[in-house]
Amino acid sequence: MLDTQIIQKLQAIVGPAYFKTDQETLVTHSYDGTPMLQSLPDGVIYPATTAEVSAIMKVLSEYRIPLVSRGSGTNLCGGTVPLQGGIVMVMHRMNQILEIDRQNLTATVQPGLITKQFIEQIEAIGLFYPPDPSSMAISTIGGNIAECSGGLRGLKYGTTKDYVIGLEAVLANGEILRTGGKLMKDVAGYDLTKLLIGSEGTLAVITEATLKLIPPPVYKKTMLAMYKDIQGAASTVSKIIENRIIPATLEIMDNPTIRVVNDFAKLGLPLDMAAILLIEQDGDQEAVERDIARISDICESEGAASVSIASTQEEALKLLTARRSALTALARLRPTTILEDATVPRSRIADMVMAINRIAEKYNVTICTFGHAGDGNLHPTATTDARDHEEIERVEKAFEEIFEAAISFGGTITGEHGVGVVKAPFLEWKVGSAGIQLMKGIKDAFDPHHILNPGKLFAKESRRRVVVQHG
Amino acid sequence: MLDTQIIQKLQAIVGPAYFKTDQETLVTHSYDGTPMLQSLPDGVIYPATTAEVSAIMKVLSEYRIPLVSRGSGTNLCGGTVPLQGGIVMVMHRMNQILEIDRQNLTATVQPGLITKQFIEQIEAIGLFYPPDPSSMAISTIGGNIAECSGGLRGLKYGTTKDYVIGLEAVLANGEILRTGGKLMKDVAGYDLTKLLIGSEGTLAVITEATLKLIPPPVYKKTMLAMYKDIQGAASTVSKIIENRIIPATLEIMDNPTIRVVNDFAKLGLPLDMAAILLIEQDGDQEAVERDIARISDICESEGAASVSIASTQEEALKLLTARRSALTALARLRPTTILEDATVPRSRIADMVMAINRIAEKYNVTICTFGHAGDGNLHPTATTDARDHEEIERVEKAFEEIFEAAISFGGTITGEHGVGVVKAPFLEWKVGSAGIQLMKGIKDAFDPHHILNPGKLFAKESRRRVVVQHG
Repeated sequence: MLDTQIIQKLQAIVGPAYFKTDQETLVTHSYDGTPMLQSLPDGVIYPATTAEVSAIMKVLSEYRIPLVSRGSGTNLCGGTVPLQGGIVMVMHRMNQILEIDRQNLTATVQPGLITKQFIEQIEAIGLFYPPDPSSMAISTIGGNIAECSGGLRGLKYGTTKDYVIGLEAVLANGEILRTGGKLMKDVAGYDLTKLLIGSEGTLAVITEATLKLIPPPVYKKTMLAMYKDIQGAASTVSKIIENRIIPATLEIMDNPTIRVVNDFAKLGLPLDMAAILLIEQDGDQEAVERDIARISDICESEGAASVSIASTQEEALKLLTARRSALTALARLRPTTILEDATVPRSRIADMVMAINRIAEKYNVTICTFGHAGDGNLHPTATTDARDHEEIERVEKAFEEIFEAAISFGGTITGEHGVGVVKAPFLEWKVGSAGIQLMKGIKDAFDPHHILNPGKLFAKESRRRVVVQHG
Repeated sequence: MLDTQIIQKLQAIVGPAYFKTDQETLVTHSYDGTPMLQSLPDGVIYPATTAEVSAIMKVLSEYRIPLVSRGSGTNLCGGTVPLQGGIVMVMHRMNQILEIDRQNLTATVQPGLITKQFIEQIEAIGLFYPPDPSSMAISTIGGNIAECSGGLRGLKYGTTKDYVIGLEAVLANGEILRTGGKLMKDVAGYDLTKLLIGSEGTLAVITEATLKLIPPPVYKKTMLAMYKDIQGAASTVSKIIENRIIPATLEIMDNPTIRVVNDFAKLGLPLDMAAILLIEQDGDQEAVERDIARISDICESEGAASVSIASTQEEALKLLTARRSALTALARLRPTTILEDATVPRSRIADMVMAINRIAEKYNVTICTFGHAGDGNLHPTATTDARDHEEIERVEKAFEEIFEAAISFGGTITGEHGVGVVKAPFLEWKVGSAGIQLMKGIKDAFDPHHILNPGKLFAKESRRRVVVQHG
């Protein structure tokens, strides 16, 4: 419960309409895209300007009140659940494109801008902003920056961190920090821009971002390759890269995912395939045609049962939309869907998929796997039921073993979803105790009283590692 | 002077041949590529393994002895001058390519590897590592990482930070940190990899790096455009980008630079031009030919006096070599050459060049300007004489005003050379007092006793800003 004086101070900053403490608003902001996590905030605030954010932080800092800044809350790591109560700051009113600079190929935007709306406006003027997380229809640019979101085009074009070149952010004490700028090169001190990207709201509140835009590819081609064994699909991925072709998109769906997506999107996919690869190349027409032809050859020599090239853009879009709908489709199967993003070097995709299947069988749980095969970023997804505690325990054990397997293959516990609260107990497995200590030191430097998104990234206790043998 | 006990401990780690305290060795390691800076270390150590680096750091940490790690010392910011004495650690014995992984398109290397040797070995097997600082014939990969080096290909391909995806580093206390990996996506906690890149040896000693490789472009074309006024050259740069063409290289040389380079490399360049643009595009042949044709049209419509396309690779190489030799050529003019790298948004190139000329005139000093016009990274270079203190004072005032101008155009004090000691007094102009405080906090988290490259990045006193009016 907030003190009346604090409520009055916050209302004075944003106006009474934009600071809410009614039960409905609190409940609405007590959870995010992550299943089985809920915690009520004490208030929800909707700032309109950087100055308001700064004033709010000064009040919260004075009274040591926790602050969780958020966009649409589509994250899957519990990143925006207000674990310790306090204030949830919703950035949706700060949703403007402040400037598109065609001479410098940059856009300056506010954090509450919806990613897809931004991408569409940029494409309408003949430019390109590649990061395309699957949540982009509702996720915000600010949320994408906080989580360093990836997407289907990450393999060729990189992720959010490759496109953010300047930030304005409000620190825990209300000070305003400006980093980078419309600059392709800037080595003035430590790279605070990159440090804030992916910091999950634990270091500062992002209030403005300068984004790099690039010329769009002029031509695009999409193809599907289907495999009766997963090994063939995985070795196709390795062979494509080894042949020095970097496709724009290189996605994999395993058999359970194919069945569900097919049912959801009515695609008429064959249901006896172990895996499908969805491959897209873009660029100049000549180069795209050449790459697609070479990729087709590789698919066939690696034993694809069928290879088909989309003949129209509509057909291609249908395929891509199907892949993007995988989570939605899987979510219809059972009450609870838990989607993870264990990531490995791309040469270890086959090992990882086989490990996931073995682990799922061991714990008798259903795990479908799809994801960005080209960059080794897989999404093993459990369909389960939160009300069945015994089953949930098995699912959690299975995921623990999946993270362990990813690490043992030289991978990481999260490729694009973030650590949040869900993966905090596993962070030390990836970064070591030295890494954890350094990260805590960085946190202290930015937020000495730990009021920014407390309880995230750093777990009270690291999980002990299970001993797993991998072939 | 080092205590005998410490000398014995260090010799026991690397063997007596690899820890030196003789005067000749100390003097040789008392300076780097930066003019007018010298400070004697107390000893020079040459480790062969990460374990040795760790053992050395444990000793130095125990006795609070400063450590400056370095490669070839080609930096231009005084980054490797041992300002507070202590130990210089030369990484040249750790110079191996540990692995080239063709399936994952990565190379794992030691920090003492010479950049050009690495690039040549990578190109020999049909792969590509783009960062190409002008010093690459002698600079090391470790030094490139410490400074986040750029180069001529930065515009299209990015700089060192875009290619380092994993690091092994030894912390001040001797602990070994491992970050990232052979992973195209990894959001497990704060991005320590990117934080270490460009940290100028102040946070840790880099002992191993995993680098991303890419497929090489198959075709390349080089052209020159010459202008009788600088404005035409600058507006050509903006127009090329605005037309959504990103050349591989887009370099500018002003008249004084043209004269010197021409004399040095015997190129037969016309000496009455105000500026020359050197432009290179690479990629698929069809796309390159199209881009070069469109760039030629833009050059002509922006008033180029002459546009010529290199007809052979030899001719192109000659042009590029001439540009790369600019510093060497300028260095022959007078005893002391001071090269800076004020950087602005690329749309402000003309403003910046004109400001540099105005400032040089005001202080009656000779400043030639060349650099990476495409990414706004200019190298105003003063030819002077360190023995003439009165002139040096004017040169320093001129550079101070040049940094001020860069900041006022939305630019930065350093695009690719680093802060070191030379630009430490100006860092606050770019990052603000909040930025400085955060950076100091990060420094404390990594190196609580300030033994790693002390006296760098953070100045005792920030320079007060000159009040300059820019049109």
